[in-house]
Amino acid sequence: MSEMRTVSFNRIAILGTGLIGGSFALALRQQLPAARLTGFDREPLLAQALEMGAIDEAARELSAAVADADLVYIALPIAASIEVLGQVARHARSSALVTDTASTKRAICRRAAQQFKKGALFLGGHPMAGKETSGIAAAEAELFRGAPYLLVPPESAAPSRGSKRSAVDDARVSAFRDLLQAIGARPRLLDAETHDRAVAVISHLPQISALALAAVIAAENDDASGLPLALAGPGLRDSLRLAGSSYALWRDIALTNSDHLGRALERLAQAIEHLRNQLTSRELETSFAVANRLYKLLQEMQ
Amino acid sequence: MSEMRTVSFNRIAILGTGLIGGSFALALRQQLPAARLTGFDREPLLAQALEMGAIDEAARELSAAVADADLVYIALPIAASIEVLGQVARHARSSALVTDTASTKRAICRRAAQQFKKGALFLGGHPMAGKETSGIAAAEAELFRGAPYLLVPPESAAPSRGSKRSAVDDARVSAFRDLLQAIGARPRLLDAETHDRAVAVISHLPQISALALAAVIAAENDDASGLPLALAGPGLRDSLRLAGSSYALWRDIALTNSDHLGRALERLAQAIEHLRNQLTSRELETSFAVANRLYKLLQEMQ
Repeated sequence: MSEMRTVSFNRIAILGTGLIGGSFALALRQQLPAARLTGFDREPLLAQALEMGAIDEAARELSAAVADADLVYIALPIAASIEVLGQVARHARSSALVTDTASTKRAICRRAAQQFKKGALFLGGHPMAGKETSGIAAAEAELFRGAPYLLVPPESAAPSRGSKRSAVDDARVSAFRDLLQAIGARPRLLDAETHDRAVAVISHLPQISALALAAVIAAENDDASGLPLALAGPGLRDSLRLAGSSYALWRDIALTNSDHLGRALERLAQAIEHLRNQLTSRELETSFAVANRLYKLLQEMQ
Repeated sequence: MSEMRTVSFNRIAILGTGLIGGSFALALRQQLPAARLTGFDREPLLAQALEMGAIDEAARELSAAVADADLVYIALPIAASIEVLGQVARHARSSALVTDTASTKRAICRRAAQQFKKGALFLGGHPMAGKETSGIAAAEAELFRGAPYLLVPPESAAPSRGSKRSAVDDARVSAFRDLLQAIGARPRLLDAETHDRAVAVISHLPQISALALAAVIAAENDDASGLPLALAGPGLRDSLRLAGSSYALWRDIALTNSDHLGRALERLAQAIEHLRNQLTSRELETSFAVANRLYKLLQEMQ
């Protein structure tokens, strides 16, 4: 409580009005009906966002969208988000909070630390929400409800003993956390390294694992007989849901988290070898017990 | 059309009144309301089946359940199904059709070929339907709707050029196929070897793959911080749904299909290694394209 100033987000810039940016805008409509939302994206997408009532106004230039915003919400692909940081830092008001939605946090937070030395505060963000379909047409105000929303404050400003002020105590960070809670998300603070290691295991690993499963099934599938795919029950669809994900989205994730993800994949290959050797042994029961316990934990969480 | 005799199933024995046996019984209630259903299982399960109206009568002895049945439906676990074959063959009427529901077909069909030399006809069966929860309480008449239902006729009697009569042409097989179609299932004939190889890839491989994923996440999970599991979005639940499966169900599957499943797991480990080497390369796009195409095929099928 080092700062008692009350922060309110009255003018909000949404850079990237796709599924995430669009859903955040729609959620704001309900929580902050008086706020003025300015969108910035490619022309046809902006037109769609306007038509859906997700934004009040469409900016032709990034600088114009950012210039008088209290909150700048960057919801572009990872590489594009990193790329615009410099321009955002130059044009943002010094009282503004800038946050992003990239699925990896080390790369973007490192760049932000270089660009946001004074003035606007950069808070890394990662909503653990999504859908099979992308684009603003799929956007909905309830997208974030119940989903973890990870926040990475600037490193040098992380809370430490004796420091009187830190980014975590910054009134803008508190206000943004309150806003996230109001739209139903579950904000959680952590550092970029911890974030990237954790999501490598619970998000990126399942994605690549689904690709591997799809590769084996595709190689085995015979076009003439349709086997084995034609025999699939409804369960296979759950296992392969992530096989429908788009490369465009994942390229940057794989690139910016290849070390943690690579290690997780190594462990997965080892686990598969281990299970292969257990198929006809009683030890398989232990592996089921571990999996059952984890699944139960996951169910209790949600 | 070698045999024009019309077959009707008037007395049906359900050996094992769990999720599958119970659901089949409930489906019969709608399609063959005049048929008399006799159940055989452990006492408390039978009482539950009677109470739900899934069966008309509970047999205390397997021989009594089977003795005057036109159709014997074995819906026990794999090992138990194999074990009862001899007794069923001894007591079944020579005009009866005996079928099972085991998830692997080589082991049970091999044993059936030894036990059913004359008299009752054994038709291997495998409904590709299921649920997360087992037991008759979860049973429903609609369980089989839209799901493939694989049928394995006796090997020696498989259709071949010049043979005038085969099990496939047997009126009992046709009648059972018609019945399956009537309850909404999609019957498909194939041989035991083809069956076991196909299900190793599209059913058993995803199961073991989910165990491997669960093992890596469980090993990485820290009880104190709850990380990384606490960060999981709703998507992880789909990827790990099979991690909730029971060892009791899978032990016999792994035992009776370890060769095909082992080879599939070997290919999966290779695919993971391959993807690991693609993380920072443009080749990753090809792997996404293969997975996207397969997922689309799967969606079009369902």
